[in-house]
Formats: sequence, structure tokens, C-alpha cells
Amino acid sequence: MKLDSAGLEILARSACLDLLASTPIGRIVFTDHALPAVQPVNFSLLDGEIVIRTGIGSKLAAAVANSIVAFEADEFDPVRRTGWSVAAVGHARVASDPGEIDRLSRLPLTPWAPGTRDHFIVMAPEQLSGRRITS
Amino acid sequence: MKLDSAGLEILARSACLDLLASTPIGRIVFTDHALPAVQPVNFSLLDGEIVIRTGIGSKLAAAVANSIVAFEADEFDPVRRTGWSVAAVGHARVASDPGEIDRLSRLPLTPWAPGTRDHFIVMAPEQLSGRRITS
Repeated sequence: MKLDSAGLEILARSACLDLLASTPIGRIVFTDHALPAVQPVNFSLLDGEIVIRTGIGSKLAAAVANSIVAFEADEFDPVRRTGWSVAAVGHARVASDPGEIDRLSRLPLTPWAPGTRDHFIVMAPEQLSGRRITS
Repeated sequence: MKLDSAGLEILARSACLDLLASTPIGRIVFTDHALPAVQPVNFSLLDGEIVIRTGIGSKLAAAVANSIVAFEADEFDPVRRTGWSVAAVGHARVASDPGEIDRLSRLPLTPWAPGTRDHFIVMAPEQLSGRRITS
């Protein structure tokens, strides 16, 4: 088991992807009017890319299109004080190819929030890192 | 009930603070080497300020000291598809006054990760916003 300087277990890329696939909610981190911003989203993985569904003309799509964003998911157990987190950094784009949109529409990715959400933000993790706290 | 353009309930500042006080884990969002970065932390509230405990010389303390950061906490129920999230933006500082450090040391804020963590990052939320998804 490889530990970082804070004593946390360093997770391999494959473990990071497995953990991301295990949870429906993550947080996208971006810059909004020159300030750091963060928004929870439900997401899905497709071919190692993170896919987020959003509304047409959403502030999120406008803020993240063609920019470098971070994405984070985690799960913690407050009683046992264990848990994991995975963070990805990469270039976000709004899907525009009709074939790709059709393919993304078939993902099991139903937004929890109300409203029509027919746009997809896709992020390819260029950096992917994960940590686990073991008891 | 006030809704935003995405159909989510807008939470008042007092509700945001109550929700933040109800959960031990949040995520601090900052810039690391010009890239967006996010790290889960356990935290506490003191007089409306967000307090994070970290190690001496930690990368986090170096990255966030005297900069504008965002902070996010949330709780979601995947079965009922409900949940809330609160996001804060404000100026982060590393506590340096011995009297303040002494006061912060008495918070019920035991880090989950191993190692000595005797430094405190304090953030006063200048912007505070919260949303709730109701079923």
C-alpha cells in the first residue's frame, strides 16, 4: 500500500475509475466570473470520460465549455472515519455532434433536478488521483 | 418556496449555515499551480466561519493562504433523489494568533486522516448559497 505525505493510501488510476463508476453524484469545480465555483451534479462514465447532463443555456455549460475543470467524488463513513475521494482535472466540452449526443442520451443518466436537460458536458480526465483513509 | 431557474429551492443564509453545521465533511476548492483543485476536508463552524484543521507545511495551507476559495458541502439520497448543497466563497487565511489557535484547538475537530494537524485554515463566507432538490 502506497501512502502520501499525509498518510493517506494513494489509489491507482484503475481504482479511481472503479470508484467513480460506483457513485451517481460528483462535484464539478470551475471558475465563474473569476471566482472559484463548485456545483454538485449527477454523472456517468463513458469510455473513461465523465459525462454530465445539463439544461440548454445553463450557466454551468456556459461557464465550463472549453475550459479546464476539476471533478470530485467521494464517500465517507462518519462513524468508522473511513472513506475515499477521487479528483480529476481535464478539459471540458459541450457535446455538439448529433451522433455523440444520441449516444450520450442513452446513458443511464436521469437528472434529479427538474427541467429539461438535453445538453451534455464531457470531460476527459487528464489527471486522475485518488486517496483512501483506512481505519 | 423560492425556486431558481433550474427548479431548485433557494435556501436562505440561515438555512445554509444550519445545514453546514449538520455535516462533518466538506470540500475546499482552490487553485493549485493555475489549475482548479478540490479536496475533501473535515471542518467545523465557529461564529459563522468555516474552520479546517491541517498539518504544518501542508500543501493545502500553502495553496489557500490569503486567497479566495470556495467551500461546498452536500447530502444526497440516491433512492429518493432528494438532497441539498451549500456553497460558500470567501477569503481563506491560516490562523496565526496564539489566542485564536488555542480557541480553534478546542473545537470538536479531530482529523480523520493520520498525522499531526496543528494548523487551522479559516474562511469567512462572503457569498453563501444553497439549493435543495425536493421530491
